[in-house]
Amino acid sequence: MSIIIQKFGGTSVATPEKIHAAARRIIATKLQSHQMVVVVSAMGHTTDELLDMANRIAPNPPKRELDQLLATGEQVTIALLAMAIHSQGHEAISFTGPQIGLITDAVHSKARIREIDKQRILTELTAGKIVIVAGFQGMTVDGHITTLGRGGSNASMVALGAVLGAEACENFTDVDGVFTADPRIVPEARKIEQISYDEMMELSSVGAGVLQTRAVEFAKKYNVRIHVRNSAGNAPGTWIIAETKSMEDIVVSGCALKKELTRVTLKGIPDRPGVVARLFTVVGERHIVVDDIIQNVLDDKTANISFTVEHGDLADLKPAVDQVLAELGGHATYEKDLAKVSVIGVGMKQATGVASTMFTALADKNINIQNISTSEIRISCTVANTDAAEALRAVHRAFNLDRSAVTV
Amino acid sequence: MSIIIQKFGGTSVATPEKIHAAARRIIATKLQSHQMVVVVSAMGHTTDELLDMANRIAPNPPKRELDQLLATGEQVTIALLAMAIHSQGHEAISFTGPQIGLITDAVHSKARIREIDKQRILTELTAGKIVIVAGFQGMTVDGHITTLGRGGSNASMVALGAVLGAEACENFTDVDGVFTADPRIVPEARKIEQISYDEMMELSSVGAGVLQTRAVEFAKKYNVRIHVRNSAGNAPGTWIIAETKSMEDIVVSGCALKKELTRVTLKGIPDRPGVVARLFTVVGERHIVVDDIIQNVLDDKTANISFTVEHGDLADLKPAVDQVLAELGGHATYEKDLAKVSVIGVGMKQATGVASTMFTALADKNINIQNISTSEIRISCTVANTDAAEALRAVHRAFNLDRSAVTV
Repeated sequence: MSIIIQKFGGTSVATPEKIHAAARRIIATKLQSHQMVVVVSAMGHTTDELLDMANRIAPNPPKRELDQLLATGEQVTIALLAMAIHSQGHEAISFTGPQIGLITDAVHSKARIREIDKQRILTELTAGKIVIVAGFQGMTVDGHITTLGRGGSNASMVALGAVLGAEACENFTDVDGVFTADPRIVPEARKIEQISYDEMMELSSVGAGVLQTRAVEFAKKYNVRIHVRNSAGNAPGTWIIAETKSMEDIVVSGCALKKELTRVTLKGIPDRPGVVARLFTVVGERHIVVDDIIQNVLDDKTANISFTVEHGDLADLKPAVDQVLAELGGHATYEKDLAKVSVIGVGMKQATGVASTMFTALADKNINIQNISTSEIRISCTVANTDAAEALRAVHRAFNLDRSAVTV
Repeated sequence: MSIIIQKFGGTSVATPEKIHAAARRIIATKLQSHQMVVVVSAMGHTTDELLDMANRIAPNPPKRELDQLLATGEQVTIALLAMAIHSQGHEAISFTGPQIGLITDAVHSKARIREIDKQRILTELTAGKIVIVAGFQGMTVDGHITTLGRGGSNASMVALGAVLGAEACENFTDVDGVFTADPRIVPEARKIEQISYDEMMELSSVGAGVLQTRAVEFAKKYNVRIHVRNSAGNAPGTWIIAETKSMEDIVVSGCALKKELTRVTLKGIPDRPGVVARLFTVVGERHIVVDDIIQNVLDDKTANISFTVEHGDLADLKPAVDQVLAELGGHATYEKDLAKVSVIGVGMKQATGVASTMFTALADKNINIQNISTSEIRISCTVANTDAAEALRAVHRAFNLDRSAVTV
């Protein structure tokens, strides 16, 4: 009997009615001769409400205690979902992250999964029960509760899929799948039927909110098939799978927008070996994700270096930057209100002219490009936050993403 | 350095402001050279809100899942309190019941504590931290989360006091201490300065809400001194301690009311050995507390047996009664809307005339006594719910409980 993992995001379990709907879907899938493992997020806006509560208590609470607090959100959902399934006549048992021995490192608020005790889950599956697991959480080997950071429930889903050798991970959410762009910004955006792990990772890393980058990275590593679907209705969504030959015919699969970025520039720092390493070691120790690093040498002795971070990381970043500047000299400037528009496609590896199409589309709209970065399957342009939505629409149109097969 | 346990009930941590007030009090006590262990309940009406949510999902949810749900309430409080203490410049670490190895039996929703891993707490105390523990919860040896039933946070407090050899357990609540009667019903009720474990147990078992019977029982067994105090202000409250000689001078220490009782009567059951044992075995297996058992033999072969239970246990009780009746024959009646008025005092052991004073007080108010039960230090009368408040006031006045020293 194959194992199916179903994951329900916060909006899909936001009310008792939605929890019952999720229960019906889980039971229906079980009745198709599957063993069911279900991962859930906190209901609706619970996590934000808990964060608000913490902020009312203390401006900068210890992260261990924040994790202790936030982990309650998912624990409420697993219990309620187990009750709903039980009331619909089927057996279910709920587990917190710690209860299934989901061991993580000790980086509170951004912990990474190390191992899962699959035996506990398999025992309950063999007994015919539906197993419900709290996403987003685990514990250190010392028993401290940790959370996995934004989109952590997807990491839980994929890790369970990998450990249990699941046939598929069905990721239920409030959208129909992965789109060629955010439909709230680009109304003509189109649902993508299947997309490769690499494309999905790039899309996630540049702002497509459906799946967090490391969940997809993990899925690729263990070849876990993910099906992103809408929890309302039975329509197929987007399959995230290993790259196929036919995917290469599509030059650009999608585009995405990442807003609320800040560019940090360190001016007049010494231009000698080890300086950059020192800077990003200090920043890295705070687990801040840094992007778009550019270095300019000014003269024999000094250089400027700039990079972008998310607004949310600024409070953590500034002390690190100050520490480095105190050691090395120089000063820092912060440019807020930036955004990044990106196009992604595995076909880009073979195609030409993608960059010029993108730059032309932005130029035609009189949008100033402040920075450009690329990977093998991605081109990104940094623009002002105020230009961001128009930039995304222009790029989407330029690559004809509203139509199925796209060539340049 | 002596250890002080402070416990804050739900109303004492109902808002961020109250949590900060609790933090200030904890820190102030620590600064008097104490090691601090703090036990907290869920904020305000959280537990009831979680129960409501469960009831919206399923009418009769599995108790394991209900415990999984309810345990989140205290987990939220411990994290927020740790944050508040941290923001006031002191170190604190929060632990759920499972995290301190608070092992219970497997009776979900009414679990009993078996052991606590004190080493974990002592390590943190030695490191200078304030240790905050979620009351009301523990886990089975298999890692299932359990809750300790009504007033379970007090059981947690006393168990910690016993295991850690604490100097005192300070139980902070929204009342000034233990009163001679519920002041909401009897305005002239007076705060008791000190009361023996036995009196407190009897008071709790007949409806005084401050401390649950088994918490006091446990405190007596391990000689844990409890100080019940108001979290608003610094006034001394009521000390619950071992019986002293001077306590015996007080014939009646207090009176209490237990409302919402149902009397169950089984009529026409066989009058032979083993029948009563069978009945209460079946009822006991469901962990229902039964009181005031009366048996009348009708003729050679059949008997009536009646007992009282709380309304809340009726749903669990009825299937047990039906099972017994199916085995033995007979039928059951249920009289709802009963209450029990009790007077308590260790001095009663030596005194005379207590019962007649009580019965006369009720008769003078034309209140019908439906049942009488006694212990060495208690007399209880069952009356109609509608007469309950007036009965309590009459008894309180009859024993002059509004004045300090009481003799009959």
